[in-house]
Amino acid sequence: MDSFAATQARMADLDDRIRADPARFRVLTGERPTGRLHLGHYFGTLAGRVLLQDRGVEVFLVLADYQVITDRNTSRDVVANVHEAVLDYLAAGLDPAATTIFPHSAVPSLNQLLLPFLSLVTEAELHRNPTVKAETAASGRALSGLMLTYPVHQAADILFCKGNLVPVGKDNLPHIEMTRTIARRFTERYGALFPEPEPLVTASPEVPGVDGMKMSKSRGNAIALGMTEDETAAVIRRAKTDGERRITFDPVARPGVSALLTTASLCTMTPPEVIADEIGDRGSSELKRVTTDAVNARFADHRRRRSELAADPGVIDEVLTAGIERANAIADRTLDEVRERMGMRYLARA
Amino acid sequence: MDSFAATQARMADLDDRIRADPARFRVLTGERPTGRLHLGHYFGTLAGRVLLQDRGVEVFLVLADYQVITDRNTSRDVVANVHEAVLDYLAAGLDPAATTIFPHSAVPSLNQLLLPFLSLVTEAELHRNPTVKAETAASGRALSGLMLTYPVHQAADILFCKGNLVPVGKDNLPHIEMTRTIARRFTERYGALFPEPEPLVTASPEVPGVDGMKMSKSRGNAIALGMTEDETAAVIRRAKTDGERRITFDPVARPGVSALLTTASLCTMTPPEVIADEIGDRGSSELKRVTTDAVNARFADHRRRRSELAADPGVIDEVLTAGIERANAIADRTLDEVRERMGMRYLARA
Repeated sequence: MDSFAATQARMADLDDRIRADPARFRVLTGERPTGRLHLGHYFGTLAGRVLLQDRGVEVFLVLADYQVITDRNTSRDVVANVHEAVLDYLAAGLDPAATTIFPHSAVPSLNQLLLPFLSLVTEAELHRNPTVKAETAASGRALSGLMLTYPVHQAADILFCKGNLVPVGKDNLPHIEMTRTIARRFTERYGALFPEPEPLVTASPEVPGVDGMKMSKSRGNAIALGMTEDETAAVIRRAKTDGERRITFDPVARPGVSALLTTASLCTMTPPEVIADEIGDRGSSELKRVTTDAVNARFADHRRRRSELAADPGVIDEVLTAGIERANAIADRTLDEVRERMGMRYLARA
Repeated sequence: MDSFAATQARMADLDDRIRADPARFRVLTGERPTGRLHLGHYFGTLAGRVLLQDRGVEVFLVLADYQVITDRNTSRDVVANVHEAVLDYLAAGLDPAATTIFPHSAVPSLNQLLLPFLSLVTEAELHRNPTVKAETAASGRALSGLMLTYPVHQAADILFCKGNLVPVGKDNLPHIEMTRTIARRFTERYGALFPEPEPLVTASPEVPGVDGMKMSKSRGNAIALGMTEDETAAVIRRAKTDGERRITFDPVARPGVSALLTTASLCTMTPPEVIADEIGDRGSSELKRVTTDAVNARFADHRRRRSELAADPGVIDEVLTAGIERANAIADRTLDEVRERMGMRYLARA
């Protein structure tokens, strides 16, 4: 069995286990609040979170705000980005009673776990992480202390709530491996406390931006979930396609055309080749119209709910207050267990 | 002016400024709770802390318990070591109403500062630290993530209480330089909040162990402050001296003899050469008797107070409870200011 098939088989088995006993699993998932959530986030992770939650799995959703400063000198806009993300989470169907939503900077006992965890890994292991290497190269900056150590901080994000299932793209498998190493070494040195979390490798295809490159706010090729219909139309209108009248799905030779087809496909759950055939030789302008309609129809409900939520100024505060409170209660308890295992309780009654 | 003279002049100037306005200074000092405090600690740092406190300087004394695991796989005995240290602090004259005594693992908001601070230094800067290099070499182990980053954690120890004066041995000057760098860069990126602390270089001579090497619990050459008179006599009796009857102060040629003379000198505030002359040619056994008497006389009051304190089971708990509470209140306030400067406040009323 090749590696791809093995992964598929493992994921199918994991899926069976989740359906059989969702209460056995606790998911930690999240993202850096560096901009507005877009279709890449929705199809890549957000839809999957809603599915897990609705199957009865408890979900913790961390807004990894300290990761924002791993490769930049400013945390500007992070509050606005977190607030916007909360609106998208709720609009997409996450229920704050079942999913705990919080920025990790608001949970000191979670962050403190970084200290004992750093003692469990070597500097050489930190340097070997291929994702950190790639991200550092992409940033064009000197490797910061936070960039080097953020996989250990991510272990704290996962283990503070004893998360045992972590949805990841393939890029992030080395981080899960480090979390498993940390959990295992903690057990060896101080006694059992943490699970070794399993990765849940995202099955969904990568969503291309309107230029055929990976969808990313910084590239300006992203369709944000919170855009209006007109904003959506404007972004798609600017997409770089080609002059050929006949529309075909060919990601290598025609990345722009194929990116739009993929987008329309994900929104309508129709194969991209079928959409291409339907458009036939009516060219790029028809492709753009079809894609715009597909996105706007797919997210009409999302955007309506989002607007209603945004009109209530108390809703974001309520969700974050509850999430922060719950995350702190769990983190305080876990840190207390860590202190007990490590023999670091100093007060008679504590 | 050579570097030594320049340092002396700077220290004299600093001393004048402390006397002129002690309320301007806040001292952060501390140690790793790896064993019982000994004469090296007393003459090297503890006596100086008492002096600063008695001059009206506010002192924060951190028991750096997470530093215990920078170079070992166990935190065993750390509670006992902290409790014993508290007894020595009080016996030496530290007043818990003026000096805040706490283990840093009990102060989550202090530890959280490690996150933003790690973003302010590069991995290359972490690697350049000569003290970390030396300590890693001495440990004979692979460099751990915690060993690499502990100078940044030390910056959190210093800056959480906005300490602006840090007593250090020369070995630790690179750490103060890193703290100053972190404070300066935080100001540049997010606005003024932290002072750039000044080092207060310890003037007292290094206290040799009874074998003439640096006094250290792990070498078994240390006279613990909490020893009985008989235990003190026993350690000094085992000291390696030489057969020459005439006692002279010659640290290079006669390290064992000279270590005892230095110890007696520190305890009696008499130059070692004078003590040597007084002993004349009565040899090592007389030198050991004189040294034992000097130590036991010097620490008789300390040990009496220590025993009285140890007899009251509530006293350690009371000191640590108050210190932990005060350190947390200050750390919570500082972390809140950090969040405000960094634009990381998410709740309407927070």
